Amino acid sequence: MIQKTIYVNGVAHNIFVDQDASLAKVLREQLHLLGTKVGCGEGQCGACNVILDGKLVKSCVVKLSRVPNDAKILTIEGLGTPLNLHPIQKAWIKHGGAQCGYCSPGFIVSSKALLDENPNPTREQVRDWFQKNRNACRCTGYIPLVDAVLDAAKVLRGEAPPESLEYQLPADGHIWGSDSRYPRPTAIAKVTGTIKYGGDLSLELPPNRLFLALVQAKVSHANIKGLDYSEAEKMPGVVKVVTSKDVKGNNRINGLAFPANKGDGKERPILCDTKVFQYGDAIAVVAAATEAEAKAAAAAVKVDLEVLPAYLSAPAAKDPDAIEIHPGTPNVYFVQKLVKGADTAPTFSRPDVVTAEDHIVTSRTPHMPLEPDCAFGFLHDDGSLIVHSKSIGVHLHKAMIQEGLGLADDKLQLVANPMGGTFGYKFSPTNEAIVGAAVLATGRPCCLLFDYHQQMQYTGKRSPFHGTLRLAADKSGKILAMETDYDVDHGPYCEFGDLLTLRGVQFMGAAYDIADIRGEGRTVCTNHAWGSAFRGYGGTQAQLISEIVVDELAEKLGMDPWELRHKNVLRPGGTNPNGQTPDSYSYVEMLEAVKPKYDEALKKAKAESTDTHKKGVGLSCGSYGCGLDGPDSSNAYAELHADGTITICTAWEDHGQGADMGAIGTAHQTLRPMKVAPERLKFTWADTRNPVSGPAGGSRSQVMTGGAVKAACENLLEGLKKPDGGFLTYDEAVAAGKPVKYDGTFSVPGVPLDENGQGKPFMVYMYGVCLAEVTVEKATGKTKVDKITFMIDIGKLNNRLVVDGQLWGGVAQAIGLALSEDFEDIQKHRTMIGGGFPYIKDIPDNIELHYFENPREFGPHGAAGVGEIPLCVPHPAILNAIYNAVGARVTRIPALPERVLEAMPK
Amino acid sequence: MIQKTIYVNGVAHNIFVDQDASLAKVLREQLHLLGTKVGCGEGQCGACNVILDGKLVKSCVVKLSRVPNDAKILTIEGLGTPLNLHPIQKAWIKHGGAQCGYCSPGFIVSSKALLDENPNPTREQVRDWFQKNRNACRCTGYIPLVDAVLDAAKVLRGEAPPESLEYQLPADGHIWGSDSRYPRPTAIAKVTGTIKYGGDLSLELPPNRLFLALVQAKVSHANIKGLDYSEAEKMPGVVKVVTSKDVKGNNRINGLAFPANKGDGKERPILCDTKVFQYGDAIAVVAAATEAEAKAAAAAVKVDLEVLPAYLSAPAAKDPDAIEIHPGTPNVYFVQKLVKGADTAPTFSRPDVVTAEDHIVTSRTPHMPLEPDCAFGFLHDDGSLIVHSKSIGVHLHKAMIQEGLGLADDKLQLVANPMGGTFGYKFSPTNEAIVGAAVLATGRPCCLLFDYHQQMQYTGKRSPFHGTLRLAADKSGKILAMETDYDVDHGPYCEFGDLLTLRGVQFMGAAYDIADIRGEGRTVCTNHAWGSAFRGYGGTQAQLISEIVVDELAEKLGMDPWELRHKNVLRPGGTNPNGQTPDSYSYVEMLEAVKPKYDEALKKAKAESTDTHKKGVGLSCGSYGCGLDGPDSSNAYAELHADGTITICTAWEDHGQGADMGAIGTAHQTLRPMKVAPERLKFTWADTRNPVSGPAGGSRSQVMTGGAVKAACENLLEGLKKPDGGFLTYDEAVAAGKPVKYDGTFSVPGVPLDENGQGKPFMVYMYGVCLAEVTVEKATGKTKVDKITFMIDIGKLNNRLVVDGQLWGGVAQAIGLALSEDFEDIQKHRTMIGGGFPYIKDIPDNIELHYFENPREFGPHGAAGVGEIPLCVPHPAILNAIYNAVGARVTRIPALPERVLEAMPK
Repeated sequence: MIQKTIYVNGVAHNIFVDQDASLAKVLREQLHLLGTKVGCGEGQCGACNVILDGKLVKSCVVKLSRVPNDAKILTIEGLGTPLNLHPIQKAWIKHGGAQCGYCSPGFIVSSKALLDENPNPTREQVRDWFQKNRNACRCTGYIPLVDAVLDAAKVLRGEAPPESLEYQLPADGHIWGSDSRYPRPTAIAKVTGTIKYGGDLSLELPPNRLFLALVQAKVSHANIKGLDYSEAEKMPGVVKVVTSKDVKGNNRINGLAFPANKGDGKERPILCDTKVFQYGDAIAVVAAATEAEAKAAAAAVKVDLEVLPAYLSAPAAKDPDAIEIHPGTPNVYFVQKLVKGADTAPTFSRPDVVTAEDHIVTSRTPHMPLEPDCAFGFLHDDGSLIVHSKSIGVHLHKAMIQEGLGLADDKLQLVANPMGGTFGYKFSPTNEAIVGAAVLATGRPCCLLFDYHQQMQYTGKRSPFHGTLRLAADKSGKILAMETDYDVDHGPYCEFGDLLTLRGVQFMGAAYDIADIRGEGRTVCTNHAWGSAFRGYGGTQAQLISEIVVDELAEKLGMDPWELRHKNVLRPGGTNPNGQTPDSYSYVEMLEAVKPKYDEALKKAKAESTDTHKKGVGLSCGSYGCGLDGPDSSNAYAELHADGTITICTAWEDHGQGADMGAIGTAHQTLRPMKVAPERLKFTWADTRNPVSGPAGGSRSQVMTGGAVKAACENLLEGLKKPDGGFLTYDEAVAAGKPVKYDGTFSVPGVPLDENGQGKPFMVYMYGVCLAEVTVEKATGKTKVDKITFMIDIGKLNNRLVVDGQLWGGVAQAIGLALSEDFEDIQKHRTMIGGGFPYIKDIPDNIELHYFENPREFGPHGAAGVGEIPLCVPHPAILNAIYNAVGARVTRIPALPERVLEAMPK
Repeated sequence: MIQKTIYVNGVAHNIFVDQDASLAKVLREQLHLLGTKVGCGEGQCGACNVILDGKLVKSCVVKLSRVPNDAKILTIEGLGTPLNLHPIQKAWIKHGGAQCGYCSPGFIVSSKALLDENPNPTREQVRDWFQKNRNACRCTGYIPLVDAVLDAAKVLRGEAPPESLEYQLPADGHIWGSDSRYPRPTAIAKVTGTIKYGGDLSLELPPNRLFLALVQAKVSHANIKGLDYSEAEKMPGVVKVVTSKDVKGNNRINGLAFPANKGDGKERPILCDTKVFQYGDAIAVVAAATEAEAKAAAAAVKVDLEVLPAYLSAPAAKDPDAIEIHPGTPNVYFVQKLVKGADTAPTFSRPDVVTAEDHIVTSRTPHMPLEPDCAFGFLHDDGSLIVHSKSIGVHLHKAMIQEGLGLADDKLQLVANPMGGTFGYKFSPTNEAIVGAAVLATGRPCCLLFDYHQQMQYTGKRSPFHGTLRLAADKSGKILAMETDYDVDHGPYCEFGDLLTLRGVQFMGAAYDIADIRGEGRTVCTNHAWGSAFRGYGGTQAQLISEIVVDELAEKLGMDPWELRHKNVLRPGGTNPNGQTPDSYSYVEMLEAVKPKYDEALKKAKAESTDTHKKGVGLSCGSYGCGLDGPDSSNAYAELHADGTITICTAWEDHGQGADMGAIGTAHQTLRPMKVAPERLKFTWADTRNPVSGPAGGSRSQVMTGGAVKAACENLLEGLKKPDGGFLTYDEAVAAGKPVKYDGTFSVPGVPLDENGQGKPFMVYMYGVCLAEVTVEKATGKTKVDKITFMIDIGKLNNRLVVDGQLWGGVAQAIGLALSEDFEDIQKHRTMIGGGFPYIKDIPDNIELHYFENPREFGPHGAAGVGEIPLCVPHPAILNAIYNAVGARVTRIPALPERVLEAMPK
């Protein structure tokens, strides 16, 4: 240890520190300045940016030995406070810069350093700065952040009035609609670093809280022969080494398997007992007084393993020689067929049809949220176990872990913390049951904080599809038939693997009216990272496969890809692969709107291509459903309080997508007859004590929980209506014996797919058409996306800031998906950079969004969802554009330079 | 545990808490809002005041179960920040409201609550508010706090401009002098709660830090027969039970005994080994991960004691039957004689002299700082042990504990933290060696935080004097001779007990020119609380005894007490009891200045006395020395830095008295030729790495360390002087090869007392004359001080805010000393209220200070010290006023109502 004096935000601090400790750790864990976030923990994300003696640094990699005595440090807390925001913070709010908000403090501090150095930067200089300083954002696509910096700079230079950064409510008081830039309710807390994420709250637990560290498998498949933790349990600070023997229930996560699943869905252990199924599997968990003590003891636990062959892909696990990963359950454990119209084989053998076929492999994409996974739990005085985590499905997860922990229904409560992004990985429980087991075993509050390597290696990933797809069209280009055949490599745990496999039969070729389809998808158990939800879930993989083959078919037909799409997209009377009539026929409109831009892009690409750098243009169409398959429903309540505020209570989890704005915007629009000021509406964080709203995934929340919020607010309006107009106040309602709390429920009449893949899985869909323009460096195969033009039909918009943000951010992820993101190599891909995280210069500053606001029958105030669509459409357009540029048909993503190079015609 | 949402300073916090935890603990230990201080921990001091849903509460006694969900809480952090102060905070700075600063956040939050409720309070309403809310301040005497509230209120009401609260540097730039109200450098940090005290810093140690809990004796005297900590060491979180066996050195505090001391000064154990010497003695210390775990384990340590007779007073310990508390050393272990002039016995037997005699017993006064004792330590990477504490003598304490811990000189470093008052108790080491032993035994950072009962029961107290004093005067009132005989009950540990005994021969009758004196003082070992320094150290006790007997002599002579004093005080040519010529003859001037006020007061008392309430007037004179006895010295350096700042480096400990202002004011005055802006001068906190400045006690620092600072600054001026005028900048000095760091040393030619008490112990003295006006309720004996008029000669003033504050605060302590403060009953007196802490309504709002600025030869820029004088003069005036009011001669303080009642003539 050493001692130093540092000045933080103008205040002198005598600090007593390990000189190898990082500045971020000292600021957070010793000085409790929690606004400085730690994302990657290794200098790759900038969430921990602070200004040290005038220079921007990544505090997670600055050791205290390198912090000079008397150093002056500025953290987000020193920039502005909730009641006294700095112009950069105001601009961040104005532009919706904070979605999950986890990167915001780092970005804002970074912007401060930039503007200190260069008060009048160009747009490109801002981008260069964030690139150079590796400020990583996973939510926004960076565009609004650059807008915010430039706007703040104007005010700081005195060229624009400070008020220009502030939101003004329109005269009629509405906050709903595509013209609404009402800032999301959590924005101030996010830009000031005062919102508390799980890792922050863990540091605010009572002093008796324990830190947990996992004993994890370092092989992918093994039998557990023994476990020796006698030494570990004697180590300093260790309270207990918790193993499967300490888990009181059946020690299994319930994967909620479909009836047709060949497994029972209970193959995933909370803590491994007989086998290790994937790299990183938790075999034990050490509870100790400090994180360092827990980790040291975890490293000292001896695990005796009999290593088994590891099946790291669907083909490997399907090999006839492969043993069953879960003995008793075949590695191919679920099959979904698709039978629409007539048999397709005769069509494909007709001499007058043109066919195209390809086999495409999608990637095991890592979600790469800025905030690594974390959770904490404790025993409530009422006798229940409470676990706080990044769950985006609190009720769902409760059902999944309750039996495993051996808890009665009223003895387990799950709460969703503010979270630094999930993008779907938290549709699966990750740490909840482990933390719960540790709390139950020790009787003390426990927290489990993953480092970024653990985030990468021990949370679910997007499951790769290995798919073959064939299309047959007549000479005019009318698609007559489609055949699909695919395997879903779902890792070792079945949860939602069957559900995901349905997506193949729902979204391959989903944009087109194809009369005859035959297909089969299979869920395959492997030993790679378990499959979990990821934005665009299944639609991403399915539509990549079909949209590539559509382009290949166009080439075979000698048609322009636009023409082929225009001829075949769904028009009134057409049905999707599941035989369902779409809720909006917007493809033609969107394609026609993109046409001049497409023509122009083609011309431009031709004109600007050089011998070394070829430009190309690609198109794609796609859709995604909003909801859980079949008859989905959600619940909410609205409650008027004595102070005139109204609680809008749901379990709508906010992983940064904007649950707060979704709920408040929808409620406010519904309550407009009451003329409620928006700040009177209070959002509630998701909790199993709240009404069952279902998980915040599959773009269902705005539709389903928005519908429930609307219903609750309508009931409140009705219940408080005065006969002569106007509405009862709280006091009046109480005096009149009227209730002040009103429930609302919303359901849709969906029909689950039958064994042939026919039904009405979703009552609301989102649609999109994307135009991608790329440059490929011929010598290296390196691809740069120059521009994305995105036509979107997501019905009516709730809030422009939120929707733009979701789309820009989703497009950025689609670019990463297409070009760089991967988690195939467990070691190489365990970091952000290793995993191909897209930084600002990987994302074009030019992402055009065009909305086609066709109102939805089942959407509240006409809205559909938004989150998934940008991950279902742009990436095939990029792949098609690469082909257009250099003739390289890449059939395995990400389209890394070496893959593009290899696919180029020699 | 429970979970709640609370809004703290406008920010939502989800909290997870033990419902029995106090709000203060949760704010501090979980939310790390360290501005809220915990003093007494039981609702008696208001340091923890916060506003909860609009109501002022003592957060230390509000359990979380009583904090409503969604509660709105305002803490000091929400009021204003260092860069954006609230008007109350500005007013606090303007009026010097923050001395130690520990009560400031609570007072300021309390003031906010008052002004929210009553924006235009009267002076008395402010006092009523602080009384009702038990806002306790030990430093200021409350007067500047009331001034601050009224001034802030004016600004808040818009009746005064905000600038009226701000300090303006005078045109000539000086900050030294009696007209200077330059705010002390630490003021902003103190009023914003951002300065970190030991308990705050303990919470900022690295996560591996351990909490310590003492195993303490619950008897006052015993042999230790055994110690069983086998169970305790197995308890949760316990890392080690540290006992005397773990202490590597001789396990003794070195009391630095005088050669004539009959003990060797090494009788105080760090951790008791063979015996317990007083209630609370530390027998072992438990190191555990949390404070609760450490305390639980400490309670489980079994101590086998053979209880011995406890000698709880000097007379009891002197009883011939009493055993030796430290076997081998007599209970009376030091004797100091006083022989001045001719033998006194003949004079006392002369028929023409009037004599007076009394036996007076002073109190075991508790210091009652707002902040309970605390310390922490760790092993530095350089291999040394570093202990941070409230030490007001870092070099002294190093010398006292080094051998006990078995550490080489370069392996121990002591640092003085910002501290919430000591008033002298930290002139003794308290926890330093214990913390050091625990750090050495565990290898980990350790902290030891006392609760208020421990502060009361296990830190040193003012040692009671049991003294008989006789005066002989001729009929004209000329005092001819004095005889003194006194015992000093110094508790079980000898440290500075011999030194203290000298004070009796230095200050009994010290105001008067008495030709012949004979006296003897004895230091007695007892089993009550160990004697430690306390403001006015010895002078307090000595002058109470002599000033009462002076009044008794006046009565015998039929003279007015003012007349008697005026006749006998030191005039040019006179010498004090040690035969020393005073450095300033100001008594006559001060007495003459007080005369009209005295006459007026007598008239007023007569006029306003009623049958039930009698008013009385009392006088006293007194002095105190500035320095350690004999040839004292101090060291400092001044160093110019590249940024133009100058470090003024000393080990001048700041216990709230204003070391920061003392050093900076002195330096600034010296450096005026350089025209240095005051904010360029940097104060350094005391540390054994700094120059040896000696302890911050005995009002020596302004003189001795001020002298060293002046010398260093003079050397710097000389060294950087340019031939053509002006001074070299840092860069110029470096270029010219001139040093930028200049040492300064200051020494005084004092002469220690000889065996007859003759010498020149101090080269600088402070002098005072006090007029006290009181009202005594006849039926109860309850005394109220109505007014204090204090004439003071402390030489030239450095800073008016600091000096006024020291004097008002010292007078308030003198009132407590006279009327209420005690620690005789170990159980009853273990709380603030039990110990007789003076609240605002115990202290008159009317304390007049009149300065007689006679410059001192040995004082820097003419200044003497200040801290001790207000505890040497006012209290006898109060006792004399009680006698004047109701004829009750109280000879044992505190003059509790029952004692006054008993002493009243029947």
